[in-house]
Amino acid sequence: MRKSRSSENFSNKTALDKGGIDFIELEEIVRYSETDQMGVAHNKNYFEWFEIGRTEYCRQKNIPYKDIEAQGFYLVVVEAFCKYKKPLRYDQKFIIRVFLQSITPKKVEFTYELVTKEEKRMIASGYTIHIVTNSKAKTCSLPPHIINSLKGAQT
Amino acid sequence: MRKSRSSENFSNKTALDKGGIDFIELEEIVRYSETDQMGVAHNKNYFEWFEIGRTEYCRQKNIPYKDIEAQGFYLVVVEAFCKYKKPLRYDQKFIIRVFLQSITPKKVEFTYELVTKEEKRMIASGYTIHIVTNSKAKTCSLPPHIINSLKGAQT
Amino acid sequence: MRKSRSSENFSNKTALDKGGIDFIELEEIVRYSETDQMGVAHNKNYFEWFEIGRTEYCRQKNIPYKDIEAQGFYLVVVEAFCKYKKPLRYDQKFIIRVFLQSITPKKVEFTYELVTKEEKRMIASGYTIHIVTNSKAKTCSLPPHIINSLKGAQT
Amino acid sequence: MRKSRSSENFSNKTALDKGGIDFIELEEIVRYSETDQMGVAHNKNYFEWFEIGRTEYCRQKNIPYKDIEAQGFYLVVVEAFCKYKKPLRYDQKFIIRVFLQSITPKKVEFTYELVTKEEKRMIASGYTIHIVTNSKAKTCSLPPHIINSLKGAQT
Repeated sequence: MRKSRSSENFSNKTALDKGGIDFIELEEIVRYSETDQMGVAHNKNYFEWFEIGRTEYCRQKNIPYKDIEAQGFYLVVVEAFCKYKKPLRYDQKFIIRVFLQSITPKKVEFTYELVTKEEKRMIASGYTIHIVTNSKAKTCSLPPHIINSLKGAQT
Repeated sequence: MRKSRSSENFSNKTALDKGGIDFIELEEIVRYSETDQMGVAHNKNYFEWFEIGRTEYCRQKNIPYKDIEAQGFYLVVVEAFCKYKKPLRYDQKFIIRVFLQSITPKKVEFTYELVTKEEKRMIASGYTIHIVTNSKAKTCSLPPHIINSLKGAQT
Repeated sequence: MRKSRSSENFSNKTALDKGGIDFIELEEIVRYSETDQMGVAHNKNYFEWFEIGRTEYCRQKNIPYKDIEAQGFYLVVVEAFCKYKKPLRYDQKFIIRVFLQSITPKKVEFTYELVTKEEKRMIASGYTIHIVTNSKAKTCSLPPHIINSLKGAQT
Repeated sequence: MRKSRSSENFSNKTALDKGGIDFIELEEIVRYSETDQMGVAHNKNYFEWFEIGRTEYCRQKNIPYKDIEAQGFYLVVVEAFCKYKKPLRYDQKFIIRVFLQSITPKKVEFTYELVTKEEKRMIASGYTIHIVTNSKAKTCSLPPHIINSLKGAQT
C-alpha cells in the first residue's frame, strides 16, 4: 500500500514534466570499485551520487555546501529513498539531476534523477530530506541568505 | 504529502508491536571509515547494514544468499528507503533487525530496524524491495523451496 | 628492485614464525558490497579490514582507539601497504591478525595478516605506519601510559 | 629498514624529474562520504583514486580497461602501496597522475602521484602491481596489441 502509492507518485513525472522547477545537472562515471559481483553498480552508491549532486547544486547556486557548514549549519539526512530502474555498469557515464524540491528554515528536500547520458533514459530517481542543525547537532534555522541562495534558480 | 504520509505509517510501529512477524537480529559495530566529517556514520552505510542483515536473515533460514545466487536467482534491489532517527558514532555497537515483510515468487520485501544495543532505542528503520532475476538479468520466479525456506520463521 | 626486495622480506615470515611478537586476532566476513565485478573482494577493502583490526587491537589492550582520540591523540596513516595472495569471496569468513610491529612516542607501525578461517592459509599481508598528531594536526608525542598500554602484549 | 629504504627511493623523485616516462593526468574532487571523523579523506580512498587513474590511463591510450576485460584479460592487483604526505579535505580538487612504470606480458606496474590542483604540491604517491589472469583467474599473458597500446605514450 504505502510504498506502491508513494512510488507511483514519485515516478510518474520526469524532471522535464515538472515545469516550474529548475534543476542542475552533472555528469558522473561508474568506478570499478562501485560495481559488485552482479556486475553492476551497487545500490548504496546511488546515495553517494545523490550527495555529489547536492554538493554541485549548492556550488552552482553560489553557496558551496562547505561554506554552509563553515557558517555553522548542517543539512542532516533524515530520510533517503531510491527507486532503481536500469542498472549502471563499470565506466558508464550518466547524468545526475538535482532539484530543490522544497525548503523551509528547518527542513530541505532534494529530489534526484539519474539518466543515461545519450538518450536521457531514467536509471534511478529518489529523494533526501534534511533537517538543519548546528555544530552541536541541535536543530536550528537556516538564515534567509542561505535559503535565498539555494532557491536562486526558482525565482 | 507523499513522504510524510508514508513515513508516518512506516515509523509508527516497532518490531515488537508487529506481533505476528518473526525477525532475526545481528550485532554490528561502526567502522572508522564509515564515519564522515560530521563525526557520525554516513547515510549510505545504512544500506550496507541492511544488506548484511539480509545475508544473515537468509543464513538463519538455512538458505544462504550465496546459495540462492548459485541456484541462479538474484534478488535485485528496486527500491530502498531509510529513515534516520539517531546518529551512530565510531565504535558504537548496535543491533540490526531484519523482517521478511512479504514474499511472492517475483517480489520480496525486507524491512529493517537498527536499535541501540542496550536500551533497544530506534536508530533507523527502512525497507528494500527486490525483484527476482536470473543470471542474465531477466525477471523470473523463485522456486517454492526457496520461498518456503525464507518464510520459515513465519509458519 | 625496490618492491621485489621489500616484498620478499615482507612475506617470508608468517605470524607464527615471528616468535617474540604477540598478536591479536578477530574474525570478519566479506560483505556483498565489498565484492566487485571480478567476483572477489575489492583491493581497497583490505585497508578497511586493517583498520578494523587496529581498533580491535587497541580495545584488547584496554586502550580503545576512541579513548586515544578523546585524549587528544590521533594516529594518522602516513604509509599503507598490502600484498594480495589469495582472493576473498562474498560471505567468506577470514581471520585478521594484528601485530604492533614497533612503537615510539612519535611513530607507530602495525603489521597485518589475513588468513583463511580453517587452514590459516595466507590471504594477504601488509602494514600501516602512523605518526602521532594532536587535534589540530600538529605532530606530538604519545604519553607513556598509552604507549605502555599498546605494548601490553609484548612484555 | 625495509620500509624506510623503499619509501625514500619511492618519494625522492616527482613525476617531472622522471624524464623519460610519460604520464596522464586527471582531476578529481573529494566527496563528502570520503571524509572521516578526522575531517580529511580516509586512507582507503586513495586506492580507489589510483584505480580511477588506471581506468583513465587505459582510456587515453585507446585501450579502455573494460575492453581489456572484454577480451578476457584481468589486471589483478597483487601489491598496493601509498605514502600520504598532505591531507585532502571535502570538496578539494586535486590532480591524479598515472605512470605505466613497467609492463611485461605477465606483470604490469603503475605508479601514481596525487598533487594539489594549483601549485602541484605532492599530496600522496604510490604504486600498484598487477598480474594478468583470464576470466577463470588463471595467470596468462597479455597479447602484444594490448601491451603496445598501453605503452603507447612511451615510444
